[in-house]
Amino acid sequence: MPDPSSAPALASTDPAHLDAADPLASYRDRFVIPDPDLIYLDGNSLGRPPLAALERLARVAAEEWAGELIRGWDHWLDAPLRIGNLLGTQLLGANPDEVALCDSTTIDFYRLASAALDARPGRRIIVTDRANFPTDRYVLEGLARDRDREIAWLDPDAVEGPSTEDVAAVLAAHPDDVALVTVSHVNYRSAAIADMPAITSLAHDAGALVLWDLSHSAGAIRVELAAAGVDLAVGCTYKYLNGGPGAPAWLFIRSDLQAELRNPIQGWFGQADQFEMGQGFRPRPGIAGWLTGTPGILGLAAAEEGIRLSAEAGIDRIRAKGIALTEYAIALHDVRLAPLGFELGSPREAARRGAHVSIRRSDARELTRRMIATGVIPDFRAPDSIRLGLSPLTTSFTDVHRAVDVIAELAAG
Amino acid sequence: MPDPSSAPALASTDPAHLDAADPLASYRDRFVIPDPDLIYLDGNSLGRPPLAALERLARVAAEEWAGELIRGWDHWLDAPLRIGNLLGTQLLGANPDEVALCDSTTIDFYRLASAALDARPGRRIIVTDRANFPTDRYVLEGLARDRDREIAWLDPDAVEGPSTEDVAAVLAAHPDDVALVTVSHVNYRSAAIADMPAITSLAHDAGALVLWDLSHSAGAIRVELAAAGVDLAVGCTYKYLNGGPGAPAWLFIRSDLQAELRNPIQGWFGQADQFEMGQGFRPRPGIAGWLTGTPGILGLAAAEEGIRLSAEAGIDRIRAKGIALTEYAIALHDVRLAPLGFELGSPREAARRGAHVSIRRSDARELTRRMIATGVIPDFRAPDSIRLGLSPLTTSFTDVHRAVDVIAELAAG
Repeated sequence: MPDPSSAPALASTDPAHLDAADPLASYRDRFVIPDPDLIYLDGNSLGRPPLAALERLARVAAEEWAGELIRGWDHWLDAPLRIGNLLGTQLLGANPDEVALCDSTTIDFYRLASAALDARPGRRIIVTDRANFPTDRYVLEGLARDRDREIAWLDPDAVEGPSTEDVAAVLAAHPDDVALVTVSHVNYRSAAIADMPAITSLAHDAGALVLWDLSHSAGAIRVELAAAGVDLAVGCTYKYLNGGPGAPAWLFIRSDLQAELRNPIQGWFGQADQFEMGQGFRPRPGIAGWLTGTPGILGLAAAEEGIRLSAEAGIDRIRAKGIALTEYAIALHDVRLAPLGFELGSPREAARRGAHVSIRRSDARELTRRMIATGVIPDFRAPDSIRLGLSPLTTSFTDVHRAVDVIAELAAG
Repeated sequence: MPDPSSAPALASTDPAHLDAADPLASYRDRFVIPDPDLIYLDGNSLGRPPLAALERLARVAAEEWAGELIRGWDHWLDAPLRIGNLLGTQLLGANPDEVALCDSTTIDFYRLASAALDARPGRRIIVTDRANFPTDRYVLEGLARDRDREIAWLDPDAVEGPSTEDVAAVLAAHPDDVALVTVSHVNYRSAAIADMPAITSLAHDAGALVLWDLSHSAGAIRVELAAAGVDLAVGCTYKYLNGGPGAPAWLFIRSDLQAELRNPIQGWFGQADQFEMGQGFRPRPGIAGWLTGTPGILGLAAAEEGIRLSAEAGIDRIRAKGIALTEYAIALHDVRLAPLGFELGSPREAARRGAHVSIRRSDARELTRRMIATGVIPDFRAPDSIRLGLSPLTTSFTDVHRAVDVIAELAAG
């Protein structure tokens, strides 16, 4: 990999050389790519389908659903916990039996935030940030209203994301009154990485619980939930984990909190002796007590293949390529786009940045539309950001180079 | 169809004649049936896959997910409401824009029950019955605990289900104090049909809201949500609607209540101007405000095909065949199984019975196991019921006859 400190040198590197040296380059062949000329830079919003996911879906439908019929539940019942363990232990730094795949990120976030508030009944404050992902903010607003709590909003730097110092200041302003601190690990717009160990530790020192949204981290950067002492986390599987459109989300609860916290939505999949169908809810022990209704098996099956592929590639290699791709994109931005009035909307320090790069210009919305018409697909994030998602398993350095060519041409014209 | 009043005559009818006269017989060919010798009487738990669902899944994966990538959301966004309208207007007697397909039955039941309690803040009582489906009871227990409410339990006749008189008596015992009445329309064990118009009207007279669980009705019997004045309803799509294992559930909210009730889980799919990602939750108007997180597109696509097939067959023909199949099963039970110590666990009156038949004997659990080993799949419901699910689009009269042969042989042996 080239020296990332030298933007002009890196920007002038032939992307074919970078692709030739990429140890993950062959993973692209493990995905279904019907139009190889299309440059897809939105795998951070919806990842491409693994070949194995299509094969698995066909098998689940024809052999399991049609052939096993109701008997499929003999093994489907385990799927949320089996896949949760694969994801948790291979890609999230969790211990076994701390992760379950179920429901949507919104539902899981609601349940964990709700349980956290219940576990801190005397405390009125929820800390989060204005730049957090919308669904998290909306859920918290509803909970604050319904539970008579108040949100203390961080107002982070748009590029650098919520700083540990800002969190510390808000905690100090509300002594013994913060129930929950919740931020995204990688910001959806800027890709800024929040300091998970430091913020977790600050929250704990203040007596609060902490809930991380890892939707833009899982499968893109190394996450160490257990080592950081994290209480609670959620995330999706349809971005870097290539699980499919609307694939099931996951939740993480640290082992020693699983019995202490109470699932506000008590469903039959979380019930001990589920099929006795008896009177009175008695939760299954551990993370299983956090399952709710009947899980969607088609979605789980596809997600398992995506997660398996990332686990096979290995998070360290994925992270290294994510850094290399984003460094390359930033170098090209600096040399070719900055002169056209673009500003970088992501941190320059690789260790502080996830696997996408935001570039900002006031006409970003219209430029995105024109890029898509040209066969380069990024996404737009209001008000002025073009997000270039550089999903490490499916994006080549040539993709990045060609995308910048197109942006430069459109932006100059 | 033969005269159902004469059990011996009906029981001695050749099932091949009944199949030959069945106007829906050809629908069986619209499903994937890899083992035609297997007798599947559990379509009331997991319906068989429509051929169209397998084709659709392959297309969604290869063409939409792989080919359209993120652009698929241009039409996926509408799916929960589009399919909700198909289901609601064709099969549930709802008006347009009153039904959405989303999340699981448990999650939807929680959200609607929670909203109903919020809408009746001065009232402490929730009315439901001990024989209601477990997940509904468990959710209500959690809500009662968290919201300081109390459940007034009906204790219905095990076969006939909750009677209108019992509901009236409980309402009278708690004047001006019942917030919510919620029962299943068709009981999961006995198939007893509760009187939807009468119970709805009683609840309204008492100032309560009513929430129906239609998991065992939808796609099996005629439902008239609008005509009955129902406030709220939920149901699944993986039973008679053949939507696939863990297919998305649906919720119904009467139009004039949609603005009055508040979704407790405020997610980004329920937000006006979702992709502006702005500050402050402002719900989309109407049923769209009840969407939460990112919907699972694979599950929705398969479910749409199942729903479409039921709508094409027509609920009146489906209901007529459901009655004919259950009448035939009961006649065979009376003549051949009652002498072996079985008791009928379902109402004898066709108008009071859904599309399955329960037969009871103390060794039902063991008998079910032996039936499955023989290639006849019913399911067991504790403590003593064998459920024979006679899903009208995929079950033949010959299936019923052969299943009773097997039961009689095993039970006598």
